[in-house]
Amino acid sequence: MFPVVVVHGGAGHIPKERSENSTSGVCSAARAGYTILQGGGSSMDAVVEAVTQLENNPSFNAGCGSVLNVKGEVEMDAIVMDGKTLGSGAVSAVRNIANPIQLARLVMDKTGHACLTAEGANQFARSMGVPEVPLESLITDYSRMRWKKNLAPDANPVECQMGKMGTVGAVAVDSEGNVACATSTGGMLNKMEGRVGDTPCIGCGGYADNQVGAVSTTGHGEAIMKVILARLILFHMEQGQSVEAASDLALAYMKSRVGGLGGVVTVDPQGQWAARFSSLQMAWAAAQKDILHYGLYTGEHFTQSIDDPL
Amino acid sequence: MFPVVVVHGGAGHIPKERSENSTSGVCSAARAGYTILQGGGSSMDAVVEAVTQLENNPSFNAGCGSVLNVKGEVEMDAIVMDGKTLGSGAVSAVRNIANPIQLARLVMDKTGHACLTAEGANQFARSMGVPEVPLESLITDYSRMRWKKNLAPDANPVECQMGKMGTVGAVAVDSEGNVACATSTGGMLNKMEGRVGDTPCIGCGGYADNQVGAVSTTGHGEAIMKVILARLILFHMEQGQSVEAASDLALAYMKSRVGGLGGVVTVDPQGQWAARFSSLQMAWAAAQKDILHYGLYTGEHFTQSIDDPL
Repeated sequence: MFPVVVVHGGAGHIPKERSENSTSGVCSAARAGYTILQGGGSSMDAVVEAVTQLENNPSFNAGCGSVLNVKGEVEMDAIVMDGKTLGSGAVSAVRNIANPIQLARLVMDKTGHACLTAEGANQFARSMGVPEVPLESLITDYSRMRWKKNLAPDANPVECQMGKMGTVGAVAVDSEGNVACATSTGGMLNKMEGRVGDTPCIGCGGYADNQVGAVSTTGHGEAIMKVILARLILFHMEQGQSVEAASDLALAYMKSRVGGLGGVVTVDPQGQWAARFSSLQMAWAAAQKDILHYGLYTGEHFTQSIDDPL
Repeated sequence: MFPVVVVHGGAGHIPKERSENSTSGVCSAARAGYTILQGGGSSMDAVVEAVTQLENNPSFNAGCGSVLNVKGEVEMDAIVMDGKTLGSGAVSAVRNIANPIQLARLVMDKTGHACLTAEGANQFARSMGVPEVPLESLITDYSRMRWKKNLAPDANPVECQMGKMGTVGAVAVDSEGNVACATSTGGMLNKMEGRVGDTPCIGCGGYADNQVGAVSTTGHGEAIMKVILARLILFHMEQGQSVEAASDLALAYMKSRVGGLGGVVTVDPQGQWAARFSSLQMAWAAAQKDILHYGLYTGEHFTQSIDDPL
């Protein structure tokens, strides 16, 4: 078994001028997660590090760069899950936190609960000494521009749909065969205040079980919730499907049953991995056996040595 | 196929002096839901009516009678799901609302979202004209007594565990073969502010799919989340298990894998139903073919004509 980390930067339609940043962002995040695995670190450490990097990268809809809700504010959701214990931690509708994924991990590690929401999540952050950051530090010019554009009554629905996508996430297997997942998002563009999507909902935004594998999802949140996408993929794997076939079956089901598009990264405890999507694009990258794999459009799969510059 | 509604008043350990109220409460709620089904109403109308009655009954941990969080306040979670569309609506950590289950239904019916949390849920309630009620109107002497008792450093763990239980819920099948579920709770005694449990999390607190069936769960929230209990039962039914066997298999798995106890009510679209639990007790009642069924302890199953007084 070879340790592996697979990351995604969101399913959807990525504007051409932003696609290069998306690809380099997921590749950097995969490298960061892989470095931890190579050093003997846990899959949980690897996925949290990879997602932290994507949250800090303003090109993605998570942490800095999150989409804005209808009031022009940032409310974020995140989840982690540990396949060894089935323990998870999540935050929903949290504000003024640079790295919600790290706060989600603290919920798992330091409380008897699995999810804290809104002001309660912020109170917990303060009690843990996690600094609160100004709203402005999470907002990019691009996200403010899209928010304004989408408030207009004649807003372009394609642009709107793009706003639903862009969640980031990662899955990993470490040298001990433990699997983990992490997913983080700013949610859906122009969402109502307090809207909670699929990301912090266990089995929807992600799931991890050492006996089966781990999944992190992205796409149309309400559709992902209807089919509980991450858990559905793992059920297919329990029935003997490969990581790739299970991912494709569940994505096809989501499309046919509820008309939803999305993407996933999936691993099994043996280190088999897949990055699959039904949307037009998904920025993804994987690192295993010192090889970096990445792609953006359907069918794309580039490889290079992990040490070579992109 | 005969329409049926099955309700529960929470799994756990019910003090003797409260058990009679619990039984009469679930029987009344089942009758109310059944009256709607008999009148040609939908399964969704039936489960919302049954759960509304349980929320209004101070004997249960939902609506009036909810347990208190660590600050002595009431924060409630609720979910509904419609098996025809796989659409769902939920609220989490909502305050000052008499009937969170009705607000959850409004989230499903009136927004493009599946869950609203905390102050955002209250803002939505105001926009829908749902009245806010004083905190005091949701708090009973009993819940305040238990809260104080459990703050003590020498609090009795049995009493604490009881506090984790007591969620209410219902499932139903209507004359058109549509299934629905509804679940509502005050959560876990002395929980942190903003704690979100299993109830509003799709697949955990409940799930409904016309192609398989519907489930509402109760018990140790964090354990239910680890195994996504409601969806797990329906996966077993998809594999050919009966409502009863699927419920028992999933509850046994939750006990062996993560050490959690709980209870469920389950239906399939043909009107087969089950009320099963691994906890010491669960107040439950079902109504079908003009017969009222009910019980509290393992193995108990009383029946009488729906029209006879209890």
